[in-house]
Amino acid sequence: MSSSDIFIGETIGTAVLILLGGGVCAAVTLKASKARNAGWLAITFGWGFAVLTAVYISAPLSGAHLNPAVTLALAIKDNDFSNVATYFAGQMLGAMIGAALVWAAYYGQFHAHLTDREIVGGPGAQATKTKAVEAQETGAGPVLGVFSTGPEIRNVVQNLATEIIGTVVLVLAVLTQGLNDNGNGLGTLGALITALVVVSIGLSLGGPTGYAINPARDLGPRIVHALLPLPNKGGSDWSYAWIPIAGPLIGGAIAAGIYNVAFA
Amino acid sequence: MSSSDIFIGETIGTAVLILLGGGVCAAVTLKASKARNAGWLAITFGWGFAVLTAVYISAPLSGAHLNPAVTLALAIKDNDFSNVATYFAGQMLGAMIGAALVWAAYYGQFHAHLTDREIVGGPGAQATKTKAVEAQETGAGPVLGVFSTGPEIRNVVQNLATEIIGTVVLVLAVLTQGLNDNGNGLGTLGALITALVVVSIGLSLGGPTGYAINPARDLGPRIVHALLPLPNKGGSDWSYAWIPIAGPLIGGAIAAGIYNVAFA
Amino acid sequence: MSSSDIFIGETIGTAVLILLGGGVCAAVTLKASKARNAGWLAITFGWGFAVLTAVYISAPLSGAHLNPAVTLALAIKDNDFSNVATYFAGQMLGAMIGAALVWAAYYGQFHAHLTDREIVGGPGAQATKTKAVEAQETGAGPVLGVFSTGPEIRNVVQNLATEIIGTVVLVLAVLTQGLNDNGNGLGTLGALITALVVVSIGLSLGGPTGYAINPARDLGPRIVHALLPLPNKGGSDWSYAWIPIAGPLIGGAIAAGIYNVAFA
Amino acid sequence: MSSSDIFIGETIGTAVLILLGGGVCAAVTLKASKARNAGWLAITFGWGFAVLTAVYISAPLSGAHLNPAVTLALAIKDNDFSNVATYFAGQMLGAMIGAALVWAAYYGQFHAHLTDREIVGGPGAQATKTKAVEAQETGAGPVLGVFSTGPEIRNVVQNLATEIIGTVVLVLAVLTQGLNDNGNGLGTLGALITALVVVSIGLSLGGPTGYAINPARDLGPRIVHALLPLPNKGGSDWSYAWIPIAGPLIGGAIAAGIYNVAFA
Repeated sequence: MSSSDIFIGETIGTAVLILLGGGVCAAVTLKASKARNAGWLAITFGWGFAVLTAVYISAPLSGAHLNPAVTLALAIKDNDFSNVATYFAGQMLGAMIGAALVWAAYYGQFHAHLTDREIVGGPGAQATKTKAVEAQETGAGPVLGVFSTGPEIRNVVQNLATEIIGTVVLVLAVLTQGLNDNGNGLGTLGALITALVVVSIGLSLGGPTGYAINPARDLGPRIVHALLPLPNKGGSDWSYAWIPIAGPLIGGAIAAGIYNVAFA
Repeated sequence: MSSSDIFIGETIGTAVLILLGGGVCAAVTLKASKARNAGWLAITFGWGFAVLTAVYISAPLSGAHLNPAVTLALAIKDNDFSNVATYFAGQMLGAMIGAALVWAAYYGQFHAHLTDREIVGGPGAQATKTKAVEAQETGAGPVLGVFSTGPEIRNVVQNLATEIIGTVVLVLAVLTQGLNDNGNGLGTLGALITALVVVSIGLSLGGPTGYAINPARDLGPRIVHALLPLPNKGGSDWSYAWIPIAGPLIGGAIAAGIYNVAFA
Repeated sequence: MSSSDIFIGETIGTAVLILLGGGVCAAVTLKASKARNAGWLAITFGWGFAVLTAVYISAPLSGAHLNPAVTLALAIKDNDFSNVATYFAGQMLGAMIGAALVWAAYYGQFHAHLTDREIVGGPGAQATKTKAVEAQETGAGPVLGVFSTGPEIRNVVQNLATEIIGTVVLVLAVLTQGLNDNGNGLGTLGALITALVVVSIGLSLGGPTGYAINPARDLGPRIVHALLPLPNKGGSDWSYAWIPIAGPLIGGAIAAGIYNVAFA
Repeated sequence: MSSSDIFIGETIGTAVLILLGGGVCAAVTLKASKARNAGWLAITFGWGFAVLTAVYISAPLSGAHLNPAVTLALAIKDNDFSNVATYFAGQMLGAMIGAALVWAAYYGQFHAHLTDREIVGGPGAQATKTKAVEAQETGAGPVLGVFSTGPEIRNVVQNLATEIIGTVVLVLAVLTQGLNDNGNGLGTLGALITALVVVSIGLSLGGPTGYAINPARDLGPRIVHALLPLPNKGGSDWSYAWIPIAGPLIGGAIAAGIYNVAFA
């Protein structure tokens, strides 16, 4: 694969991933969406099939990493870091393009959600509601949630641990699947399996932090959230932003280590 | 493939597509259906597996385009427009047959939904309800929704953009999948993947407009809606009808262009 | 395949099909089940994966018809009726065994559902409830629904039409799939596709009658319902019983005809 | 396969299985989880895709039994018990590691659930609630449910029967699938099918007991529940613990017998 194919493939692929992944968050969250309140199963299948679609589209060009944690793990496994920067660059650019496309596709919904007085909420007697329910009902929180992840309970150690554990599972599955799949890596069936593994991680490990398990998936859209001219959008929660970067990279490295010790 | 095989295959395949796709909308929407209020996940899996079923049935005859946007994109990609008219004709005829079959399968449900006073609604104090909830409760809106798509927020630029974006993703996946699948295009596994891509687009990009992403899927059933003798059916919203035609065709052309530049 | 392999395969396979298919109805319907009220999506995936499981288990022995409508269609297509009676016998026996196993697995739930005063209901002011909601809340209706199908709106012509349409789709998919699948018919991937087609038919065409699309699936469990010593079980609705027999057989014959004309 | 590969593969694989399987129970059950109340479909797909992920990761090392009932059935089928103890040891160790990882990933959620006064409940007038609803609302019951299974209606004969029936279906599918799959057993597609069979068993037979169908899945996490320093955690329900051990082992043996008589 040439550097330009890698860059173009990762850019297109990660753009599709974030368009569809951010898209399902917008669909389920925002006012005036037909899919509003479709639930967690919709979110997790939406992200899983976003991976499926993005991998099928980009695999012929770049092998479809679409995730710096996967790129890092494959580099450690093969001890070859020559293309890492090209992959990272495409992934970050693609993630930002994808987030901007979500905004384009849901333009009116974002506006309605952020400016409708009922949704933005008021000083109601909501003391007994869980944080998730509150976030559902106020305007700015869910809009940031369309772009990037955030924890239900803010605890650096646990949040980091959850992201590490989720990424170890993801990357171990990507690496070992290569063995089952006759060495084709992300071949035709492999992309389907990877997508269902992502659904699995979402269902099982997404509860505490919203499962970034991919630094580009979180950082790229967060930058776009900070740049977009959305009314009443609130802050971009930069204090949390390092966790969905560090956690997945650490998880990818750990998975590569486990792979090289136990499976190679 | 002979012209008659193409025409018959597209007619049968698109009829199955619209029977099952319109069918799930009827199942989830209409009064006296066991699936009533089964939710957005049911709608999106229903349409995705409708694609799966229709593609498996028609692929041996016509290659299973079932969508003028796919036919247009393949013609642009290969610079061969010789069979386009045959494909379009079969797709439109099939879509109309499929919509009529939905009416046959849900005959009593349509009647109950359109004539039951409770469902048709009255001058209740529903000022705070979202448009989606209102449409759910009145009779004519959801019945049109069984046949063709409509936007939650009527905005020509956004509605067109959303349909274009959704179709670009669909057609890019169809085109690049051909590469992964050893050139078989919509082979055995390929149809499954395409179906799950359609689920993905529905979950992620269906919120604003109901994701036509296929001109025949929208126009054919809209014509049938206009022709059928349904009581209290209301208008067929012809002012919106051009968007789910133009958007998908533009999207298909853009995807073919991206493919020829980046992937060919 | 020997006659005894066919008989044993169809008996085991149809028993698994009805155990899992009736099982999901029991799980979603009955009091004191963890899956209670899991919804229509659970019902349709439950039946679809019941087909998947049953086909995988019985395919090596009998080719996994598991449905008299499929057996009839294959006999018409190949003009070979020699094994039809053996298939039918195994299917009916298996369906009855499967229904009895549902009763064993959900013994306490059946008892709780049929004897609990709250569930059996009383003379409440439920005049505005739909038939589906009423059936959900009284005891005998849903218990019969665990065994066999029934229409939401009782209309011989429509009910028959819905069953015919659903079965045509099912059988066309089974027959044409043989072509895609290099002639292996219900091979490894074929069973998965067939299962998803069944999910599709359930989601899209199950609303009016509960999609028997298989005479043995309906008649076998209905006989078991009539025989079992369930308290307060009510009647077995024999006046409807001929429709889920005749409809699927007619549908299978029509599909075989379409196949021989258009695809062979 | 060497003994150490078997032990390492089963340990890693079963750890992933229980991490993801227990994880989805935590996600759907515990306070302050984004997936709270996502429903039974989320639970069953979560466990099914947990099997998928765990099998893909561990199959290259150990063949991915991950379940003493599967190990026992394969030993009976092949009359070769030489590796049984190694498999069992890895499965038990892995299950305990997996349960501990669930605790790490959901640390704050466990604490919130067990110490929040509202959740722990009080002497409310809840006499009419089903046991499932009560368990949902009190703190200790659902937390034990994250680790191990329990019946809705406590009845030794029925509970044992339900676990036996579910395991017979699982193991028959695993054994016969080997025939369909050209003898590869749990090959690439085989793992996907097995995962969907597990979804099927969950949807259809999970209602009464929560479908352990795997002694290690239940016993390992129950031991961890007994050991962990969780506040207000209550007892570990040891009186029930033998049923999800005995039932699946009996079911596996019966399935091996059926296989050797009817399919071999």
